[in-house]
Amino acid sequence: MAGEILVGEYLFERIRQLGVKSIQGVPGDFNLALLDLIDNVGDESFRWVGNTNELNGAYAADGYARVKGLSAIVTTFGVGELSAINGLAGAYAEHVPIVHIVGMPSTKAQSSGALLHHTLGNGDFGIFVEMNRPVSAYTTVITNGEDAAAKIDEALTICYRKARPVYIGIPADTAYFKTSSANLRKPLETEEPENEPVSEQEVITTVAEMIEKSKKPVILVDACAIRHRVVPEVKQLIELTHFPSYVTPMGKSALNETSKYFDGVYIGSISDPQVKERIESTDLLLSVGALKSDFNTGSFSYHLSQKNSVEFHSDHMKIRYALYPEVSMKYVLRKLMNVLNPEKCRAKAAPTLGYDIKPKHAEGYSDQQITQSWFWPNFGHFLKPKDVVVTETGTANFGILDCRFPPDVTAISQVLWGSIGYSVGAFFGAALAVKDSSEPDRRTILVVGDGSLHLTATEISTCVRQNLKPIIFVINNDGYTIERLIHGLHAGYNDINTNWQYQDMLKFFGAKQYRSYRVKTPQELEKLFNDKQFASADVIQLVEVIMPMLDAPRILVEQAKLTAKINQE
Amino acid sequence: MAGEILVGEYLFERIRQLGVKSIQGVPGDFNLALLDLIDNVGDESFRWVGNTNELNGAYAADGYARVKGLSAIVTTFGVGELSAINGLAGAYAEHVPIVHIVGMPSTKAQSSGALLHHTLGNGDFGIFVEMNRPVSAYTTVITNGEDAAAKIDEALTICYRKARPVYIGIPADTAYFKTSSANLRKPLETEEPENEPVSEQEVITTVAEMIEKSKKPVILVDACAIRHRVVPEVKQLIELTHFPSYVTPMGKSALNETSKYFDGVYIGSISDPQVKERIESTDLLLSVGALKSDFNTGSFSYHLSQKNSVEFHSDHMKIRYALYPEVSMKYVLRKLMNVLNPEKCRAKAAPTLGYDIKPKHAEGYSDQQITQSWFWPNFGHFLKPKDVVVTETGTANFGILDCRFPPDVTAISQVLWGSIGYSVGAFFGAALAVKDSSEPDRRTILVVGDGSLHLTATEISTCVRQNLKPIIFVINNDGYTIERLIHGLHAGYNDINTNWQYQDMLKFFGAKQYRSYRVKTPQELEKLFNDKQFASADVIQLVEVIMPMLDAPRILVEQAKLTAKINQE
Repeated sequence: MAGEILVGEYLFERIRQLGVKSIQGVPGDFNLALLDLIDNVGDESFRWVGNTNELNGAYAADGYARVKGLSAIVTTFGVGELSAINGLAGAYAEHVPIVHIVGMPSTKAQSSGALLHHTLGNGDFGIFVEMNRPVSAYTTVITNGEDAAAKIDEALTICYRKARPVYIGIPADTAYFKTSSANLRKPLETEEPENEPVSEQEVITTVAEMIEKSKKPVILVDACAIRHRVVPEVKQLIELTHFPSYVTPMGKSALNETSKYFDGVYIGSISDPQVKERIESTDLLLSVGALKSDFNTGSFSYHLSQKNSVEFHSDHMKIRYALYPEVSMKYVLRKLMNVLNPEKCRAKAAPTLGYDIKPKHAEGYSDQQITQSWFWPNFGHFLKPKDVVVTETGTANFGILDCRFPPDVTAISQVLWGSIGYSVGAFFGAALAVKDSSEPDRRTILVVGDGSLHLTATEISTCVRQNLKPIIFVINNDGYTIERLIHGLHAGYNDINTNWQYQDMLKFFGAKQYRSYRVKTPQELEKLFNDKQFASADVIQLVEVIMPMLDAPRILVEQAKLTAKINQE
Repeated sequence: MAGEILVGEYLFERIRQLGVKSIQGVPGDFNLALLDLIDNVGDESFRWVGNTNELNGAYAADGYARVKGLSAIVTTFGVGELSAINGLAGAYAEHVPIVHIVGMPSTKAQSSGALLHHTLGNGDFGIFVEMNRPVSAYTTVITNGEDAAAKIDEALTICYRKARPVYIGIPADTAYFKTSSANLRKPLETEEPENEPVSEQEVITTVAEMIEKSKKPVILVDACAIRHRVVPEVKQLIELTHFPSYVTPMGKSALNETSKYFDGVYIGSISDPQVKERIESTDLLLSVGALKSDFNTGSFSYHLSQKNSVEFHSDHMKIRYALYPEVSMKYVLRKLMNVLNPEKCRAKAAPTLGYDIKPKHAEGYSDQQITQSWFWPNFGHFLKPKDVVVTETGTANFGILDCRFPPDVTAISQVLWGSIGYSVGAFFGAALAVKDSSEPDRRTILVVGDGSLHLTATEISTCVRQNLKPIIFVINNDGYTIERLIHGLHAGYNDINTNWQYQDMLKFFGAKQYRSYRVKTPQELEKLFNDKQFASADVIQLVEVIMPMLDAPRILVEQAKLTAKINQE
């Protein structure tokens, strides 16, 4: 006979089953009793981890989910959930699964229409759910124990499968209502449902024929290959076919960049010219998980013909001009490999250009400034396999495209939503997820500009509080360089002028064991990159890198011109 | 013949006419060209003041508006406006007029449906306006020059009259469209329209009769008396009648607390018992600008009879059980005074209890902790006329009720919306508004707990950047004491544990001239309060006040019990 369990206990147990160990967020009086139930999950390692504010918490949940596969954040009614909403919108845009749990006033208080704190003063208790709906794949408010388990299961399944935020409202009283624990005996069904077999078979046959007929096929891997969890399948396809493979900015780190089949980063007209030529002259583009946003495509400057394209998506396939709704890429990729002839594929696979971005030595640079073009190849060289690298929307998101990653790096950035400050919160969440993972010694590394750091800096203190040992590179280039390049090169609004003493930051945040560095020349930075203690990441470390105000990675310079043009049209 | 002007220039000129000198916000590529136009307003003192992030910016705009009457913030599409939305929701709930200007992608880019950065990736450019609608008194997107001036005027008029945020979307191109400058010759019509005369006359006659018949009338002043700008009228009414007068927590600072007609703070069942007895035994309550939220009323524990009440509101009057829609209090108050007989009123005015909260001397307290009950009366004694005092939702918002203010203090807090962290942003905005005012030497003083400070601390650095000289009291009591009292006295989620070194904060934020203090005993604090240099506020100053973790103002202890009960029902 099935037992009973409290609604809040059921929720947290289900989330634990999905691999989450840290529930993030900010306490508020409508969620406090719910938070008590975290301790009832019978797992020492499952715990509450408070953020400094809700927006940072949402960014952190995003970073956590990108490392651990899913995350959960608890906010409080009105004030908390609205503070977090921009972070959840970013997760919605970029396909990141976050369970957003909102502690609400009790059902009795809501039905009385009382003018409670954290309301707009108009007795409307449903308005914040409505405001969250456009950035949630599913919203629900649990109002009774009878259907609580089913609603929670539905929410979590959608969160995982659609890889997008879901919203679960828990009134203060319903967290303690009883619900059936029967479902908990079997794990939540997260695997996607099988495709309809006839249309799937047509897709597989057609794609296999196109591959057979093609003379120089290529594979292009984008964001949704990562988010919808087909990277293993794509890697297998590459190993099987040896086709030259590329990533987009949002697909960066999906592939092994030291593989001899990896051939570079494609960003339309602002790609490396050789990469652009090779990919745009293909007679068969296998595009996996495309998310064609402006900054991911060189402002839509792809010169690719749909008639030579196969698009693999999480919820449809597109072959040339034919749409196959509801045919999901995961099973297509798996089954496609069974029908391909490896020998024939390999015979037509063109050799790659040889993707190897060499670090530049610092000799003779002693009096010089550290330029973006010097920094990034050397930063790439500093990275180790399995590092988690978080970059900010700004010079860093474009500079990182000039890094060759060692194998199994996880790169985190927010190219589509592009909310400045995101990286700092996401960085904490990623570092926390690493700590919660089976490989807690992976390094987590942030590269953020001074302009963006100002928005969310307090989340660095949560790293300190949680005894994490990540590395923070602050590019100190006097303000919003990315904005300057788009508009207002010397405008006052692009200055920050706050004169933060970055060397004092970790101390101010209460770190007891830490190291801070300030580097102004390539020689100083090269020395630091070669310092074994620094590289060992044994304590939290901050590196302030002084760089010229108007210097930017080449790709950003090009992108900024394209964006300025669109804004002025 | 009327000339032409750019849409963006028109907007900023109108805002300048309303007394705003600092446009706040965060730059983003969709608003940069618009920001250029700030310099075209031919007034050196009208300028851009960037915040560290948009939520802080919205809080700051709220604080600015509470001092200067109205404020303006510019955010960027999607990411910026959603980051700010919680701050605007608070301004909506608490009746604070903020012009929220959102830089959007150009009309051409929007109509193309392009997958731009800062979108959800679904081609929907209207969704963020929709998300803002519930927290805006008016929303508009300017799409052409023809109706731009009229739409902007309508938005600003509504913002001012309703004392609530309005949303103006400006696509990147339309900021540079031409519009007629004709309207600019006359100032915007902000005065409220006259009431319909017949119903207004009935109201005045009825209220005057009720006053004449009453034996012990009292006046209770609440939030909307301040927000809807009738404080001068209320003060005149008190001077004319000598009726004993009270404020609610949200009405605190509306009245002159050193006046012999001022009689205390009314918070329902948790009021001072004598205040409660006097107000609840009245035979005529003149209630001005009531906003009966839980924390403003001791959780709705008023024991007042509607049949003895007259309610003055901005958009209606209520006399006993009769509603007079659309009759606004301002004109009623003005005209009422013309028909009252001062002598008769004064004859029935009961003498007040004598509101005087004496400071407690520190003698014999040398080994003791600073308790909330010691702190607040002494803090009140430290205040000077015209100080601006900002308190946080937490112990400070309740403690401030135990301060007797000198005349003309402006108190700022967020009792209804109650978003923690609000006070830090609002404090910066208030200090900026003081600097922009005709009395720039008024002191601006913040009292914030360590828990709340963590959410928005970076805005202190904006004070540093703008060379402001406010005073910051950080109540360091190890976390969220207000939450502990409601639920989870020793729960880990109410700890913050970050070990911030508050003594290093101003240095970290780049202050060159500043003073930091740390006080642990009443003697140390009394000495500081008596220090003339400290009181002169000649540089930015921070005082870390160490207080016991579980100590709280009496009123908060009582309120927390009531709130815990509601949450558990």
